[in-house]
Amino acid sequence: MTIVIQCQDRVGLISIISTILRNADCNIVSMRQHVAADAPLFFARIVTDDVEIDALSIKEKLTNALPLGAMITVNPPQKKKIVVLVTKEYHCLGDILLRNNFDNLNAEVVAVVGNYNELSDLTKKFGVPFHYISHENISKDIFEMRLKESIDKYAPDFIVLAKFMRILSPEFVAHFAKKIINIHHSFLPAFIGANPYKRAYERGVKLIGATAHFVTNDLDEGPIITQQVIPVNHTYTAEAMRKAGREIETSTLAEAMQLVFEDRVFVYKNKTVIFK
Amino acid sequence: MTIVIQCQDRVGLISIISTILRNADCNIVSMRQHVAADAPLFFARIVTDDVEIDALSIKEKLTNALPLGAMITVNPPQKKKIVVLVTKEYHCLGDILLRNNFDNLNAEVVAVVGNYNELSDLTKKFGVPFHYISHENISKDIFEMRLKESIDKYAPDFIVLAKFMRILSPEFVAHFAKKIINIHHSFLPAFIGANPYKRAYERGVKLIGATAHFVTNDLDEGPIITQQVIPVNHTYTAEAMRKAGREIETSTLAEAMQLVFEDRVFVYKNKTVIFK
Amino acid sequence: MTIVIQCQDRVGLISIISTILRNADCNIVSMRQHVAADAPLFFARIVTDDVEIDALSIKEKLTNALPLGAMITVNPPQKKKIVVLVTKEYHCLGDILLRNNFDNLNAEVVAVVGNYNELSDLTKKFGVPFHYISHENISKDIFEMRLKESIDKYAPDFIVLAKFMRILSPEFVAHFAKKIINIHHSFLPAFIGANPYKRAYERGVKLIGATAHFVTNDLDEGPIITQQVIPVNHTYTAEAMRKAGREIETSTLAEAMQLVFEDRVFVYKNKTVIFK
Amino acid sequence: MTIVIQCQDRVGLISIISTILRNADCNIVSMRQHVAADAPLFFARIVTDDVEIDALSIKEKLTNALPLGAMITVNPPQKKKIVVLVTKEYHCLGDILLRNNFDNLNAEVVAVVGNYNELSDLTKKFGVPFHYISHENISKDIFEMRLKESIDKYAPDFIVLAKFMRILSPEFVAHFAKKIINIHHSFLPAFIGANPYKRAYERGVKLIGATAHFVTNDLDEGPIITQQVIPVNHTYTAEAMRKAGREIETSTLAEAMQLVFEDRVFVYKNKTVIFK
Repeated sequence: MTIVIQCQDRVGLISIISTILRNADCNIVSMRQHVAADAPLFFARIVTDDVEIDALSIKEKLTNALPLGAMITVNPPQKKKIVVLVTKEYHCLGDILLRNNFDNLNAEVVAVVGNYNELSDLTKKFGVPFHYISHENISKDIFEMRLKESIDKYAPDFIVLAKFMRILSPEFVAHFAKKIINIHHSFLPAFIGANPYKRAYERGVKLIGATAHFVTNDLDEGPIITQQVIPVNHTYTAEAMRKAGREIETSTLAEAMQLVFEDRVFVYKNKTVIFK
Repeated sequence: MTIVIQCQDRVGLISIISTILRNADCNIVSMRQHVAADAPLFFARIVTDDVEIDALSIKEKLTNALPLGAMITVNPPQKKKIVVLVTKEYHCLGDILLRNNFDNLNAEVVAVVGNYNELSDLTKKFGVPFHYISHENISKDIFEMRLKESIDKYAPDFIVLAKFMRILSPEFVAHFAKKIINIHHSFLPAFIGANPYKRAYERGVKLIGATAHFVTNDLDEGPIITQQVIPVNHTYTAEAMRKAGREIETSTLAEAMQLVFEDRVFVYKNKTVIFK
Repeated sequence: MTIVIQCQDRVGLISIISTILRNADCNIVSMRQHVAADAPLFFARIVTDDVEIDALSIKEKLTNALPLGAMITVNPPQKKKIVVLVTKEYHCLGDILLRNNFDNLNAEVVAVVGNYNELSDLTKKFGVPFHYISHENISKDIFEMRLKESIDKYAPDFIVLAKFMRILSPEFVAHFAKKIINIHHSFLPAFIGANPYKRAYERGVKLIGATAHFVTNDLDEGPIITQQVIPVNHTYTAEAMRKAGREIETSTLAEAMQLVFEDRVFVYKNKTVIFK
Repeated sequence: MTIVIQCQDRVGLISIISTILRNADCNIVSMRQHVAADAPLFFARIVTDDVEIDALSIKEKLTNALPLGAMITVNPPQKKKIVVLVTKEYHCLGDILLRNNFDNLNAEVVAVVGNYNELSDLTKKFGVPFHYISHENISKDIFEMRLKESIDKYAPDFIVLAKFMRILSPEFVAHFAKKIINIHHSFLPAFIGANPYKRAYERGVKLIGATAHFVTNDLDEGPIITQQVIPVNHTYTAEAMRKAGREIETSTLAEAMQLVFEDRVFVYKNKTVIFK
């Protein structure tokens, strides 16, 4: 069982939590905690090895003992449901579908939605529903309404933007608050916005990066989950950087998804606490 | 205060420990724990933020409550004393003396001992005693006896082999059990023993490495603390690999020292548990 | 056009080669050369930007001017044909099939051969022929004979062992000399042979690696093409290392394939020269 | 001998250059070239193994044969002279002085200039002159005039800003055009300007970086030579990032100096071409 707690900091929290678990005969296999002094908030992730346990009862005891407003989840190991949004590029989606197919994602891809139809064939090869919702010739409002309808019917735990190249409105983001994970093709906060590889090429950088982050209202400004870089040099054109960048876009998003789906990621103040 | 515990694993240890601390009005700033299931052993490192506290009393309470044989240290923040052993190469020693000079080592270099005299000038520049103990024309026993005498009078917490190129006897190692840190110029267990760069060159590897480890009786076989690698290619001769390797020898040893001196490293079964 | 040359070293080779190209009105876009002093051999890779050119005539002129025995290829850009051999693990094959499907491999996967049938469905999803050739209940000779027949009919340029877990005989390797690329799941020469992750776990290493290499007669001893590592720590079981290792097995093999298929890799003396 | 050429691109340049060298009985040990299509410029770095050679004569022949305006240097292996500018932080300067002391810098540190006196002792330990030129209570013009006088008398090949925390005027930079190397404590172009670690902390990045670059008129906007990153996480305060960052500031600057001092770095259009 995985127990995840986020609450106001206070002396004695570890003692309170661990004693509740001990009294319930829960054996703690691993416990990670962090106090963010700039909040101040307490975060903990606890894994126990018991198989038969009364999750509701433990949650109730924790709720009574911890500061008011504590966010507590007591999760039996269970896969998250995700919907993946794409445009035309195959590399992140392909990687996700492969992991999903071989049960190596810690999540279940319940649907893929594309604003182009290019990736329909790939998705269907793996037996996953693909919904083609074009943004062309309609207003952004209507486009997002259709997206929302299409997604909502699956009630996903998370929405993964796997190189989805449309900017989402604050209303859309708010509808799926804290549930949208994006992969941005630069080492944020460098090259926020469009055409990061072209700008990286023009600036003559020697490393290019990728950043996986939660989506908030401000473009490319949400809490960062993971970042990776790879070396480039003067022989790389902007197009060669784009091609090389795909490798780390894929692996950075994969790493972020694994962390999130294993309940290792907490968000506060536009930052993340991650127990790796 | 930093509290470090290693003991047999048992259900409820975190509850026991955290409750003792809570009752002593200690506020836990950070707590890391690990259970090595293959032992099974419990390891914990706890940092508290209290300034005035009865360390002896807390240690006594922990000793009474934890399994028999538990190793418990309750350390006020205090620098370790180290003796550095060298041969002729300057790079690791130079880095250590710089950090020591600017109080950035979390330790105090109380002496340097060399089996050659080459690094005497460098050491003395920084006001650190240098002892030249040649291994030439004497037996290994006598050489090690002189080394021991020279080191023992400083009663160091740790001995750092900063490119010390003599193999130490089991007796010497036993005399300083769990206190000797070595930097080996390869990615162990590849290229154990002499001339790793020459052998790396002949094998045509594409990465070369450095490994910092505790010294035990078997050559290059002690518990690994840190490892780093850097890329090489076909343009590197063995000598060029040696030169490039110095960079990571220096940084790998520096990283290992920092971890050890901050009480972050535990040893069991020829392995380490490290709370970074 | 890509011109690749390997020959005995001699003064003036660059002048000879570049003057032949200049006289043929070839514009050199990039030229890389290396002299391996321990051979001594000269290696060059030249890319020209001409579209209409008499490749045969240039090859003849180079052959006449360069030292006897020079290996010279003058390749119009053309995809290599490859056969992929697999056992049960999907990750490398899945990555290869995705790249192949989206024309991002610089090669064409003409067939997949498995000694188990597990990956048949995945392969067929992508419209690639899958041949199931079991090694069970038959001699190694017969198994390899069937493999050979199955591969030979495709006349591939390269054979990629994408986690193919059978050891191949010297006869088999000789039949496809210099054409077989393997991914080994360790940082060679550490952990040659079976169960590298289990041994890495027992040794307590802090980095695990993957090595792509050409296959020669000695197990895991062929010329290394690429190597990658990722950090691990005390929380990793052998199984967790295996899972983490898959990520770099996939990316290391992908990197090696790209280098080989773009005619960037030369072999001599159990080493490689690679013009990245 | 190292020959370095930068000129307008034209068909046949390699043939022209290599034939001149061949006719002078120069044996090319290594040759690297690059055509920057966006200029278009041709860059080459050639190392020959001859000991006795008429450098002037070769330079004359190259000048006559290459496009007008070609920049050509024919360097016997010779150390660069450098002046290092510092403020208060020791880590980059200490590393430079160590390498200089043990003849491992490919340059000679002829003087250190500080706008504070903090690093005077360290510098003098190594027998290098230290000039203390305060910026306090004087105008920027006068401060820079004194800096210039102090530097000019050494006629250095390069000026290294080793954590020199004053912004230099366009006039000062122009006076030492293409000769000033800076280490910036962020992964440019992220966090240009002041307090990058504080801003990195607030943004919650998962990697921090360092960038070595030539200085031009615009702050932190000059051509990038090298960049490195290291991972950080939620346990890092801004101060901890600053401390961790020092490690890569030191190594990034060291790498950049080595490349520049070995005549491997070319500048055009605010970018660099680097033959590693």
